[in-house]
Parts: sequence; C-alpha cells; structure tokens
Amino acid sequence: MTQRYRCTVAYDGTHFDGWQVQPHARTVQGEIHKALGVVGGGEEIKVQGSGRTDSGVHAREQVFHFDARRPYACEKWQEAMNGVLPPDIQVMSVAHAPDGFHALASAVAKEYRYFLFLGPLMPPYLRHTMVRERRGLDVKRMREAAALLEGENDFLSFSANRGVEDKSTVRNLSVLRIEETEQGLVVRARSQGFLYKMVRQLVGCLLRVGRGDMSLDEVQALLDHPRRSHDAPSAPPQGLFLWQVWYDESEVNDG
Amino acid sequence: MTQRYRCTVAYDGTHFDGWQVQPHARTVQGEIHKALGVVGGGEEIKVQGSGRTDSGVHAREQVFHFDARRPYACEKWQEAMNGVLPPDIQVMSVAHAPDGFHALASAVAKEYRYFLFLGPLMPPYLRHTMVRERRGLDVKRMREAAALLEGENDFLSFSANRGVEDKSTVRNLSVLRIEETEQGLVVRARSQGFLYKMVRQLVGCLLRVGRGDMSLDEVQALLDHPRRSHDAPSAPPQGLFLWQVWYDESEVNDG
Repeated sequence: MTQRYRCTVAYDGTHFDGWQVQPHARTVQGEIHKALGVVGGGEEIKVQGSGRTDSGVHAREQVFHFDARRPYACEKWQEAMNGVLPPDIQVMSVAHAPDGFHALASAVAKEYRYFLFLGPLMPPYLRHTMVRERRGLDVKRMREAAALLEGENDFLSFSANRGVEDKSTVRNLSVLRIEETEQGLVVRARSQGFLYKMVRQLVGCLLRVGRGDMSLDEVQALLDHPRRSHDAPSAPPQGLFLWQVWYDESEVNDG
Repeated sequence: MTQRYRCTVAYDGTHFDGWQVQPHARTVQGEIHKALGVVGGGEEIKVQGSGRTDSGVHAREQVFHFDARRPYACEKWQEAMNGVLPPDIQVMSVAHAPDGFHALASAVAKEYRYFLFLGPLMPPYLRHTMVRERRGLDVKRMREAAALLEGENDFLSFSANRGVEDKSTVRNLSVLRIEETEQGLVVRARSQGFLYKMVRQLVGCLLRVGRGDMSLDEVQALLDHPRRSHDAPSAPPQGLFLWQVWYDESEVNDG
C-alpha cells in the first residue's frame, strides 16, 4: 500500500537549471529525488510537480506529490527531507493528498509574480530576486496593455516554444495586474496553465509598452494574429517567482 | 591638486570578509581599491569608509571618500568604478565632497536595520538577507526592552570587543525601534557611533526578551552594571544592513 503526499516547496532558483530533472544538471526535482533516495528507506520515489520552472526562476510555492510505502507521518517526511536537502530548497509543508490528487492535473490556477526594480542602479543584494529597469516606465500605458492581454486569448505570440505544437495555445489569463511597490513594480499573472516562457514574454511585452517601444495597437495585433514571434524579448528569469498554485476553485479569490 | 569625492556604495555582504581591507581576504574596501587601481590612471588611491561592517553584513548605503588628482567628472568616476567592480558592489553615487568632509569623522548619525523572518521555515531566496526566528516572539515586551536601551547609555555589555579598551563605551542610541513587516520584524538602530558588534548584540538581547528568556530587569541590569558579556549571543550577520549615514544634523529626521 502506498500513500500519496502533497507537498509545497520553496526554492532559490539562482543555482538550478530549473525544476525538471535532467542528466548532468543540478535541478530542483533532481535534488528532491536525491533527498527521497536518502530518506525513503530504499524505495525509489519520484515526484510530480505542478509544472516546470525555468533555469534561474524561483518558487515561493511550488507543489509536488509523491507516493511512498514507508509509513512516516507527514511531519517526519518534511523534517527528513529538509535535513538532507541543500539550503536553496525547503519543503514548506507535507500533507496526505486528497483522493485522486495530482499535482499537475488537479491544479485549477497558478500565479506567477515578476519583480522589477525601477532606477538606474540596484543595490546588489537584490540582484538575484529582482530585475532592474533603468528607463522610466509609463505605468498607466502598461496597465492598458495588461487589460488587453487579460482574459481568454490565443497566446501563441507569447510563447517561446519553437517546436511543433499540436496543442491549443489558447489560455485564460484570469489576472494580469501591475502593482506598485516601494522599489518598483510587481507583475502578477494568473492562469490555469501557461505556455513555455509565457510569463517572461508577457513581462517583456509590458516593458516594451512602458518604455514607449510598442503601441497598444501592436499588442492587440499580437493577440489578433497569433504567430510564433522569434524576436520577442523575454524578461530575464531572476525576477520571476512561482507564487502560488490552487487546487480548489473555491479558494481562488479574485486576486 | 587633488579633489576629494564623497561616494555612496551598496553591497551584498554574503561573499565578503567585511568592509575593511585585509591581506588574503576578499573585502569591500579591498575590491574598491582594486577598482580605483584600474581606473585611477596609475595613482594609488585609498578610500576611507564611514566605518567597518563585519563579514556577511550588507550595506544599502555605506559612505566613503577618496582623494584623486585625475580630473574626472563625478559621473565618470562612478561609471568607471562600476565598470570594473564585481556584481556584489555598486557605487550608487559620486559627488564632490564639501570642504573638510571626512567619511568617518564627519558622520553625525548612522542607521542599521536588522531583518527578521518569523516562522518555522523561511523561503530559501531570503536566506542571505533575513534571519529566521522559529519561536513566537512577544513583540510588546521586545518594544519595552528597546525603550530601556534607547538613549545615552554605557553599552559595554553590548560590545563583543574583548581587547583592551581605554575609550568610552557610552553611546547615544537615539533610535531603537521594532517595526512589523509582512514577513516579520525590522529592528532599526540609530546612533552617532556603535561599538563592535553592538547592533547584533542588541538584536540578540531583544530576541532573548521576545522569547521569554530574559526579563526587562535583566536588560536594565546590563545597562546599570556594564560588563564585558562574553556569553551574549550576537544575532547572525546576514540579517543586518548598514542602511544610511548622515553628515548633516538637520537632515536627520526623528525616524
């Protein structure tokens, strides 16, 4: 008999080649597999995440599940994993998964947040978690662009995926909002699912609008005439955080 | 003819053995000397800071001055230095120093801030800039202790200096305040000057009070009967930031 566990994990993506396990690369999933290899008592345990994050992207709350025979209490799994995981990964919670739970398939919404520092020079201790924007930004115009992008659209123009893609590139971007902070801006993007590099492409687009390098009409055209846009500038990874994943529709507030 | 320049610098203290230049160690001052060696045009230029920061301690705004013959504009010095400095140091401003200016001697007040994360587990991307406190803290009691410590006192009990010390250990701690943030607490400490490790010892003391391990009477006794307290626990360096240095009494607001 195995038990399925639902875990939340936070990580500093700086020194990882992203979430997904790969040969010869340091990945978050790979490190969690190694940790479970140590604490799982001989059982080979694989974990399934709510999705991948790219190289350099952080997580405040990534969710994964795993199945195990070892009859540890949830707290014991958490303690044991954190005891062997490196300091840039922390398992924040472990619970018995509800019936039929699947970290990827059961997710109903996900939120990413992108942190921008506005100013000519950024204090160096922020360089792994924020991205500096030197130029003054027209935030009002950026918000108008965000309003165009919000909602159900074909986001092909905002995907970096260059491979053959049979699947639909329509997504319901339920939230795309820009908030002002003491140091700059936070872009919040929420959807049931995102295309490859979609959040960083959306932020890249909003930045172009904010700098005056792209008009609202051009943004609308990217939605109206979806195309693989090989020249779209992605915002760099270090400002991006997987912020939260929801599994219960009723818990998703309106942001 | 030399010109004196007043500079502000921000740094990520994580990978430095503190501010002060030392042989065989990577220090902030040492890296700035190296940078000036490259951009100073053959002149050997030394910088004087407003004070030292310890290994692992960060600066939002450290101030230093230097004298140079090379007739660069201020912006040019700044650009040239940032062009060769490592990514964990950034010169934030360069200006002509006012007559008689000395980064250490002219300072009228300095503020340090210490960032505490409250909770059992901290997201790893905060680990270089905050210190986690697992236990629940009695913030009201900590504020009462801070009120006792604020003002002019002999802070010998809050210095880690074990050497012979002829100099006075009386300091005027004009601000010692605890503010609540989204993630935890910030302790703000302001004075014209601090003793060696004084801020971290003060934070260590406030934490003991907050955990219920030290009474207000015991805090008062440390002030009334100053002694070198070899067992006083210093709070760790990574939560500490040199926040601001003032040179003009009239610019120091009441915090």
